[in-house]
Amino acid sequence: MMESQEPKVASSSPLVPLMYSNRAVLKTILECGDDEIGLFGKTVVVGGWVKSSKEVRREPMAVPLKPSEASPGPKDVTCVEMVQSRIPFFRTIIRVFGGSISSQSVREKLEPTIPKPPPPSKFYLQINDGSCVSNLMVMIDSAIVPVSASQVLPTGTCILVQGVLEKPSTHGKQTIELTVEKVFHVGTVESDTYPLSRKKLPLGSLRDSSHIRPRTTTVASITRIRSALDFATHAFFQNHGFLQVQVPIITTTDSEGFSEKFHVTTLLGSTSKKGEPVTALRPDYNEDFFGHQSYLTVSGRLHLESYACALGNVYSFGPRFRAEKTVSLKQVAEMWIVEVEMAFTQLEDSMKCAEDCFKFLCRWILDHCSQDMNFLADDHYKKPVIIYDFPKAVKPFYVRLNDDGKTVAAFDLVVPKIGRVITGSQSEERFDMLTTRIREFDLPRDQYEWYQDLRRHGTVKHSGFSLGFDLMVLLTTGLTDVRDAIPFPRTHGKASN
Amino acid sequence: MMESQEPKVASSSPLVPLMYSNRAVLKTILECGDDEIGLFGKTVVVGGWVKSSKEVRREPMAVPLKPSEASPGPKDVTCVEMVQSRIPFFRTIIRVFGGSISSQSVREKLEPTIPKPPPPSKFYLQINDGSCVSNLMVMIDSAIVPVSASQVLPTGTCILVQGVLEKPSTHGKQTIELTVEKVFHVGTVESDTYPLSRKKLPLGSLRDSSHIRPRTTTVASITRIRSALDFATHAFFQNHGFLQVQVPIITTTDSEGFSEKFHVTTLLGSTSKKGEPVTALRPDYNEDFFGHQSYLTVSGRLHLESYACALGNVYSFGPRFRAEKTVSLKQVAEMWIVEVEMAFTQLEDSMKCAEDCFKFLCRWILDHCSQDMNFLADDHYKKPVIIYDFPKAVKPFYVRLNDDGKTVAAFDLVVPKIGRVITGSQSEERFDMLTTRIREFDLPRDQYEWYQDLRRHGTVKHSGFSLGFDLMVLLTTGLTDVRDAIPFPRTHGKASN
Repeated sequence: MMESQEPKVASSSPLVPLMYSNRAVLKTILECGDDEIGLFGKTVVVGGWVKSSKEVRREPMAVPLKPSEASPGPKDVTCVEMVQSRIPFFRTIIRVFGGSISSQSVREKLEPTIPKPPPPSKFYLQINDGSCVSNLMVMIDSAIVPVSASQVLPTGTCILVQGVLEKPSTHGKQTIELTVEKVFHVGTVESDTYPLSRKKLPLGSLRDSSHIRPRTTTVASITRIRSALDFATHAFFQNHGFLQVQVPIITTTDSEGFSEKFHVTTLLGSTSKKGEPVTALRPDYNEDFFGHQSYLTVSGRLHLESYACALGNVYSFGPRFRAEKTVSLKQVAEMWIVEVEMAFTQLEDSMKCAEDCFKFLCRWILDHCSQDMNFLADDHYKKPVIIYDFPKAVKPFYVRLNDDGKTVAAFDLVVPKIGRVITGSQSEERFDMLTTRIREFDLPRDQYEWYQDLRRHGTVKHSGFSLGFDLMVLLTTGLTDVRDAIPFPRTHGKASN
Repeated sequence: MMESQEPKVASSSPLVPLMYSNRAVLKTILECGDDEIGLFGKTVVVGGWVKSSKEVRREPMAVPLKPSEASPGPKDVTCVEMVQSRIPFFRTIIRVFGGSISSQSVREKLEPTIPKPPPPSKFYLQINDGSCVSNLMVMIDSAIVPVSASQVLPTGTCILVQGVLEKPSTHGKQTIELTVEKVFHVGTVESDTYPLSRKKLPLGSLRDSSHIRPRTTTVASITRIRSALDFATHAFFQNHGFLQVQVPIITTTDSEGFSEKFHVTTLLGSTSKKGEPVTALRPDYNEDFFGHQSYLTVSGRLHLESYACALGNVYSFGPRFRAEKTVSLKQVAEMWIVEVEMAFTQLEDSMKCAEDCFKFLCRWILDHCSQDMNFLADDHYKKPVIIYDFPKAVKPFYVRLNDDGKTVAAFDLVVPKIGRVITGSQSEERFDMLTTRIREFDLPRDQYEWYQDLRRHGTVKHSGFSLGFDLMVLLTTGLTDVRDAIPFPRTHGKASN
């Protein structure tokens, strides 16, 4: 039912097109290893966004693109910007040769003052579709396919084209390129306002364009690693017989007793039932949506315990929230956390499980994301360290008191440069002791009645941990600021989408 | 490093103990099929919660447990409650026989007025650890292991025991039972207040005990199916090369333009910077945490699009929120949604993907959760139906306008009894048309500037859909109220944990 101008994959193509789209994924072309030669002569449809480009008029000169294109170094935000930095040099050549038709031109807006249409050109576009680090070189001959330089050359342009895979015409690092026969779609770019049109951009400045930055090589790599880590997390726990339980995001329970929390409310912008304005200072929570003071959850471990105390080994994976105004490279307001609870276990058991999980995730990334890891990570971290048995004042109220009466059965898994990635504990299973601890923390008793029920009725020794998923992404990618590891980071004073 | 009183698994045991705990999972004992006989004589450690029990004094009478214990019918909340309903009958027997030591007693609190210790008894406990529908019969002889009736008989009691697997001593439906040698742990129950001590409970009344209800057979089954569906979702998309992207929960963007939303704020309970009380009616959002009016997200599709427009095929799986006060069996305030976006696709492609995903999830559950499905689901749903091309007024602003100017490229996948489980669309990729639609919906332009950037720069045809994960659980379990499909449902006027 596709529109007539939409692509139909040639039946002779050996490349399996992507399900639900008739294009071939670039990864299947660029990472096929020595079988590449077998692809020469095949017709294929590909789509992607232009990362860099050049135009060669009339008699093309075989000037290779900068090598960094094919093998970009670490922390190159987009390879594109590096090519752009060469523009002044090219401009100089053009001036020297007085605009000779055999000279190279560079991407720039076609001047409206140019009196006659430009001569036919070959457009060389490096395109990327997000499936891998490498780009595919695509050649469009404007004598064959009627497109203009201003349409296809700007960085960020989207194209969907059909062509023939061939041995490269230029002596670059590319080993395959596509000669275009048909153009199905061009999504142009307003270069003046496109955030990635500027010169080489540090990761920091990209944060203001969180909706565009996945088009950079770095953020695309981070995204692939993050996605792989996500699946690896589920694979680890499901392989070990854990059940996934989605704990609530909106809660009336303060899971730690000492965190800054966000309110969830429908009171703002409303009047009371009596028609009086509600004061934010002492609102009547009976009039709020849930009839209670409600928060965004800080931790799901208490809720998860109630499932562990019925089903054994359970985990949860979801967003958790802290309204901390302090600026930190390792903490933003909204972060994804993996939480684990295991019935019939003690501190040592969850330490072992946390360690295995940590190793499994690291190994998975090395096995499944080698190209992205080569692109991103220079550093190898030293071994993580587990620290356990903390003074009771620094850990939440529910952590089990040790026999010394001073320390609690808690542990942290700490990694150089990042700090704490996992924090775990054995929970206090003794009803009386838990009651004492709730009193010591001066917490509202009625808020924890339900939680104490788990000790009142069929209590069991159990332990678990929380893994900071975003920090795990930070660690595996070698980044330093967690805002670069999260698709749309939420920080104090800032939310633009 | 376990405490000395903790279990060590006998080295002769052929049963692989659970990782991170030395107990054997009941599923591996109860669902081993014909190999059961091979387990007789083996020593094993098991843990779980008592679902039903009986005491037999001195000369044990071989009275089988009610058959429903071994093969519980649909909607039996706990089998336990059915046994309890027989208590009056047993009590009568005791009275008639004047407390004869050979008669059966029932679980009841030992009266402090009883002058001498009770004679030795055999306690028969049906225990469950959440790994499967079936229970394991565990026999404790109080002459060998010093435990009392009041400790181990109440429903909900937690035990961790070591024993020998044997052919059952009674003629029930059990094919294997455990004779206990050592008791490592007993977590007692306050029967007077235990929510599952009462007679047979309908699912509705269990909702007030969302922290305890996973101990019922029904909610345990739902949890296992939900967990399997969760993993199946990731498996489907990862198998098809989709990247998972975690879109933000806190947002300043209204993703649909017509939903009731929750505010996320730190203004409640606070005073303004000038020390004045904040009015909730017209608060100064500059003083709020993010410096903007911020909401819990209604849908992540807009954010997901920005990743699709860089990486191709992406999905997200997380909680979404609606502050709707209307009571519905299919909608609560917080629900988990799977969202999908695919670049270089049109409406038909996402319809095909949605259909495949739906079928894959159904097939997965039939393949992986057959016991739970047998227990829960009587009904077979008729085929789902896809409806497409809706009047533009009933769909969000971002859905692509068809050439007729009246309808939009949207579809719903509808299932008998449940209604809409999946809703999808092709997004409006044309900048001018999207701008017109934003104006038609009277939406604040500046809120969508970032979203329009995706059309300004390298726009691409793309489509996607949202799958109501909780409704998928409802559908596969045959339940009728979505509050029974969600671990801790959040509804208007109610939040107790």
